[in-house]
Amino acid sequence: MTENSVFESPIVGRQLFGPGPCNPYPEAHLALSLPLLGHLDPAFIDAMDATSEMLRQVWGTRNQRTLPLSATGSAGMEAAFVNTVHAGDVVVVAVNGLFGERMVDVAARHGAEVIAVEHEYGTPVDVERVITAHPNPKIIAAVHAETSTGVVSDIQALGENKGDALLLADCVTSIGGMEMQLDDWGVDLAYAGSQKCLGVAPGLAPFTISDQAFERRVEKPSNWYLDLNLLGGYATGTTGGRRTYHHTAPTGMVVSLKAALERIFAEGLQNVYARHAAAGQALQDGLEAMGLTLFAEEGSRLAQLTTVNVPEGVDSAAVRHYLMSKYNLEIGAGTGAYAAKIWRIGMMGHNATDANANLLLAALKDALNNA
Amino acid sequence: MTENSVFESPIVGRQLFGPGPCNPYPEAHLALSLPLLGHLDPAFIDAMDATSEMLRQVWGTRNQRTLPLSATGSAGMEAAFVNTVHAGDVVVVAVNGLFGERMVDVAARHGAEVIAVEHEYGTPVDVERVITAHPNPKIIAAVHAETSTGVVSDIQALGENKGDALLLADCVTSIGGMEMQLDDWGVDLAYAGSQKCLGVAPGLAPFTISDQAFERRVEKPSNWYLDLNLLGGYATGTTGGRRTYHHTAPTGMVVSLKAALERIFAEGLQNVYARHAAAGQALQDGLEAMGLTLFAEEGSRLAQLTTVNVPEGVDSAAVRHYLMSKYNLEIGAGTGAYAAKIWRIGMMGHNATDANANLLLAALKDALNNA
Repeated sequence: MTENSVFESPIVGRQLFGPGPCNPYPEAHLALSLPLLGHLDPAFIDAMDATSEMLRQVWGTRNQRTLPLSATGSAGMEAAFVNTVHAGDVVVVAVNGLFGERMVDVAARHGAEVIAVEHEYGTPVDVERVITAHPNPKIIAAVHAETSTGVVSDIQALGENKGDALLLADCVTSIGGMEMQLDDWGVDLAYAGSQKCLGVAPGLAPFTISDQAFERRVEKPSNWYLDLNLLGGYATGTTGGRRTYHHTAPTGMVVSLKAALERIFAEGLQNVYARHAAAGQALQDGLEAMGLTLFAEEGSRLAQLTTVNVPEGVDSAAVRHYLMSKYNLEIGAGTGAYAAKIWRIGMMGHNATDANANLLLAALKDALNNA
Repeated sequence: MTENSVFESPIVGRQLFGPGPCNPYPEAHLALSLPLLGHLDPAFIDAMDATSEMLRQVWGTRNQRTLPLSATGSAGMEAAFVNTVHAGDVVVVAVNGLFGERMVDVAARHGAEVIAVEHEYGTPVDVERVITAHPNPKIIAAVHAETSTGVVSDIQALGENKGDALLLADCVTSIGGMEMQLDDWGVDLAYAGSQKCLGVAPGLAPFTISDQAFERRVEKPSNWYLDLNLLGGYATGTTGGRRTYHHTAPTGMVVSLKAALERIFAEGLQNVYARHAAAGQALQDGLEAMGLTLFAEEGSRLAQLTTVNVPEGVDSAAVRHYLMSKYNLEIGAGTGAYAAKIWRIGMMGHNATDANANLLLAALKDALNNA
């Protein structure tokens, strides 16, 4: 089987153990085979409402403005900043990986005076440094689960100390894989992606904004597509219950997300989280038993995304190619300066099982010996 | 069967004869069932390249920067303006429907000095008025096929008279349904949607930009997600052949679009256009034979999207609900002031056949008599 042979052999799919997308939940995959709905169809409005309500439950929020944006996770970041940053606003960004860096770029494009609080890659956000970086920022932004480093940070502690600032959290890799209580934690804005622990194909960005943040919004943001003033009527019925046309929603993708969320709730949120935790632990224990070392700081390691140091003298890309060509199995490289220094291994959504961790360890052992 | 029963009876799907989405080509629908690919998988890069090349052929362009953007058609409009409008630029917009109006809004958000050349709804763009609206605009923008009115305008004539301006064309409803030769016509920027005549679910925005337009681009647009400087490396290999990570592409949707384009080329582009033309003509002839009148001006009517006047005394919404509840069949209302005054009937993609036109006429006749 060559690296490009998936179309010749469509039954045998890739085993997606990179940093996302993962293999979707079967329910989400099958839902794409349902007949397509129009974007103004009452059945679709019902599906959108049900999806938004389940997103609220996963996130632990009562925010009315909770919806899947019609684009991938990065557009969620864009939406969060473009709707809330007024020119000259001070925005403190905790940077402990690629997605924190991206926040700095995005916030600056909207005229923010950005204070980037830099951290060493692989370490969690230092709450004290972030909180004291400025006496009165408008926004404090941080990544809950850094996809580039495999590190979880304490969003709740930021919320407890945010003062008058809005708290903005990137939840792309955390949603659906670990406990989140946005309202209790004091998070005002959050976004995610469909293709990680929610177990759906890439294409949607779950998004939520509190009433407090919405009141401080930009009246006419530079971005029409992601303008929450317009999206409110489209998705959440905030214009007196009546839905207004904004853009054509990706109806098939929303129905797929709905199916994944129903699957997650049928299994039970806590069971899903426990499954992710167990799979990640099994993988990390196994990697260390093989003599490998983990990149993320101990105590701050994500279960759903493990970062492992490429051993001295091992060709990172050769191992990945070996896994792909022999096992049809994808793991991720690092990003930027870490591209060849770490691997990123996802245990996300449907893939997050003990069994998969063991199979992956076996394949990796083979690759390390024979790649 | 109630309006919301599609999930209880998933085999019997909606017949989507509104202004889009239409029922996808079977090939595009089935492609969503293929195993998902990672966004950096060599097989996905190949699929993206093949898709972009087929988009070039459909559009009649050699633009290297031709790609499906990871969002719906309206994001294509956003991308076109945010990447090319410098603050204070004069942008002439031909407004003969909702999507021209939207262009005015979007261009203004990026600081353009917009000159809106207003037309009566239902009429095509008056090339002379648009060309003479300003002596030296930076951009001239128009909608090729107005989804809100069912009118086609002469983009080629605008191109022949554009002078030093860039010509920007909305091709959301034209792509895949009628001839386009963007290079010959002098179009510098165009965008579309996947869910109309291309016969794919909504979720992607095909996009193309000429070298000339790219040279005049905004160096750091306010929109990170749609920044063509970053997207060039992601999709089109303009950074020396190497692909750079930007965002996680909606891999499943791109593979679905690829399958639809392959289907279109297998049938033959001219055959596909002829099929759309014949289906639209059959529908329009049948509507007039029933005593109904068409909204769009004669000589400028789209085949793929027919607008018909709601007869005096007929409840527009009641007819649509009757079609939905009895035939599981969707047609569209008008937009804005025309919401209850016209219906919009699509003959797009897989749905564009003589046979469907006849079935639809029979259902509509029943509805007019009995709704």
